[in-house]
Amino acid sequence: MSETRRIHDIQPFHVMALLARARQLEAEGRDIVHMEIGEPDFPSPPQVVAAGLDAIKDGEVHYTPASGLPVLRQAIADFYAQHYAVTVSADRIIVTPGASGALLLTLGVLLERDQAVLMADPGYPCNRNFVRFLEGRTTAVNVGAESGYQLTAEQVKHHWQAETRAVLLASPSNPTGTLIDPDTMQGIIRQTQQLGGAVIVDEIYHGLVYGGQAKTALALSDEVFVINSFSKYFGMTGWRLGWVVAPEAYVESLDKLAQNLFLAAPTPAQYAALAAFQPETIAVLEQRREAFQQRRDFLLPALRQLGFKIPVEPQGAFYLYADCSAFTDDSYAFAEELLEQAGVAITPGKDFGHNQPEKHLRFAYTTSMERLQEGVARLGKYLGKS
Amino acid sequence: MSETRRIHDIQPFHVMALLARARQLEAEGRDIVHMEIGEPDFPSPPQVVAAGLDAIKDGEVHYTPASGLPVLRQAIADFYAQHYAVTVSADRIIVTPGASGALLLTLGVLLERDQAVLMADPGYPCNRNFVRFLEGRTTAVNVGAESGYQLTAEQVKHHWQAETRAVLLASPSNPTGTLIDPDTMQGIIRQTQQLGGAVIVDEIYHGLVYGGQAKTALALSDEVFVINSFSKYFGMTGWRLGWVVAPEAYVESLDKLAQNLFLAAPTPAQYAALAAFQPETIAVLEQRREAFQQRRDFLLPALRQLGFKIPVEPQGAFYLYADCSAFTDDSYAFAEELLEQAGVAITPGKDFGHNQPEKHLRFAYTTSMERLQEGVARLGKYLGKS
Repeated sequence: MSETRRIHDIQPFHVMALLARARQLEAEGRDIVHMEIGEPDFPSPPQVVAAGLDAIKDGEVHYTPASGLPVLRQAIADFYAQHYAVTVSADRIIVTPGASGALLLTLGVLLERDQAVLMADPGYPCNRNFVRFLEGRTTAVNVGAESGYQLTAEQVKHHWQAETRAVLLASPSNPTGTLIDPDTMQGIIRQTQQLGGAVIVDEIYHGLVYGGQAKTALALSDEVFVINSFSKYFGMTGWRLGWVVAPEAYVESLDKLAQNLFLAAPTPAQYAALAAFQPETIAVLEQRREAFQQRRDFLLPALRQLGFKIPVEPQGAFYLYADCSAFTDDSYAFAEELLEQAGVAITPGKDFGHNQPEKHLRFAYTTSMERLQEGVARLGKYLGKS
Repeated sequence: MSETRRIHDIQPFHVMALLARARQLEAEGRDIVHMEIGEPDFPSPPQVVAAGLDAIKDGEVHYTPASGLPVLRQAIADFYAQHYAVTVSADRIIVTPGASGALLLTLGVLLERDQAVLMADPGYPCNRNFVRFLEGRTTAVNVGAESGYQLTAEQVKHHWQAETRAVLLASPSNPTGTLIDPDTMQGIIRQTQQLGGAVIVDEIYHGLVYGGQAKTALALSDEVFVINSFSKYFGMTGWRLGWVVAPEAYVESLDKLAQNLFLAAPTPAQYAALAAFQPETIAVLEQRREAFQQRRDFLLPALRQLGFKIPVEPQGAFYLYADCSAFTDDSYAFAEELLEQAGVAITPGKDFGHNQPEKHLRFAYTTSMERLQEGVARLGKYLGKS
């Protein structure tokens, strides 16, 4: 047995080794503050839970159509109308097993072998691995504080090559939490369309935006692919449900691929998600958004005070991407050290690409304010700052 | 926008057009007997439903480890020990979003671009589409009644080429319902291993075997990939849960891919599945198996009497693959005709490959005995046989 090239090129999540070590330390009785986990600490909203329970009791456990329950596709379309004032036909919405499924389908219909996808570095690690899985290539473009850790239209133009097929944007971004402003987004869409390429926008952290309201790329163009998820804002991680809004010309191909790759998204999750857009549910989710904002508003200055550099204020998601070069030139070893010595688990930069990962850590504020305060206190003590 | 080669090569399920037409006729007030649907008509077993409900009430809606809940992997391992008297370490079991997810992972770790997978024609249509999705190639080998619609070791040897990487077997087979006998399976495993290839065995219809007990390929070798599902025998289609048992050397690669492609299988489904192996659940499932057997024992002679040729008695799944050349040389048009004129929906052969699809139909006995009787009566009347 020899490893295939695909498997060789795809990296595991490096944080998993740290998480396993954290669990081991906990099993030995140590208390660990978890700031590495990319999952909301809240349960699914009670309305969603109730809808899921009712559906299962009613026997709604058979296959749905490959593109999802028509009533859920319509509910998502209605959400775009109400929440963003954007008209999206339900026919253009494909419900998928998580946003992961949406990205797999989207790249599957767009990408020939050896074609390339432009994306920002740092970025979510799975994105380039999906491309590699499909025998495509990633053109990782280094981004920094000067552009809010987002691509610009100029970069798209500069890095475009004959084999480039698409640009993948994420707003808010994982790991940086930063948004793309609408003008930049519009510029990138225009630039990419001029170049004959496709734009994919990961909006899975939409909803978790602080001090403003993110604009969906669908407000700017019907010809973009927008990927979203019930996991993060809607608090439905384990249910595994997401969606893609696609340009009309691609819908039939996406449905065909969904038939073959998934048969359909999980049925209980689809029924549960029908309750996700109800006003009572949104009220619960908005309270949680405020809790996340309070955490960010505590953690951002606290980390800066300790000597971490976070040059751009993250407006969304639940991450802070911090330059730790004041303390180390090996962020992975530093993360190991902080885990072992300070009892704080943090994700090392190497999970997010090749753009100075050794200088960066990602802090997640997916734990309570009390635990974040404890984590900061431990870091301060260990770093001699308190 | 131009269709990618991958999308061009992947066929939609042709039966979907017939199903849509059937639904339209039903909306117009027509009564249609459904013998086209590849999904058990039974609900999930009550114990499974109860376990799913309890888990959701307990807040078990967060991500699980990528390879599945350890307790579920162990329960599957225990099932192999109890049911098949085969020892399989839980570490070799990866829980996936449906058997579809298991096949995607398996082919993902095995297949380089342009490498080929040998499989029987007729066969389940998604299989070759998964291979194409990954930029691999399918070597479809025509099989017929003489080998029980299954590959032989001689065929594997004969069709093996330099770029062949794996053989994919299905026992019981969809669409033919036939099993591979253990000697043939052993011969294929030996032959393939001699050739340096991998054997993948689709056992998703295991459990639905009549007049005997299917033997898992894991009883013959630890070096095969066995794919199974909670959908068919266990009656959990919409929950989307399956698994793969892999050779130990591939487990780490599969876990890495699962992290990236899926994050994890749906959590409520995993907890629900914990109840699938309990004796009370198995008792329910065995009653259902008997119901399926009674349906087969009715439908097989009834179709033969009408003039359909079914030369090999199908021992498993819930399908009969019938030669309809006594009536037509275009089974798709014939299926359309039977739907419109007789009110019976059947899957045309073209969904299963290129081996005389125009002469074949697949009948599914996933509806009640009363409806099957009605369907047969309608066919008899339409064909002038009653």
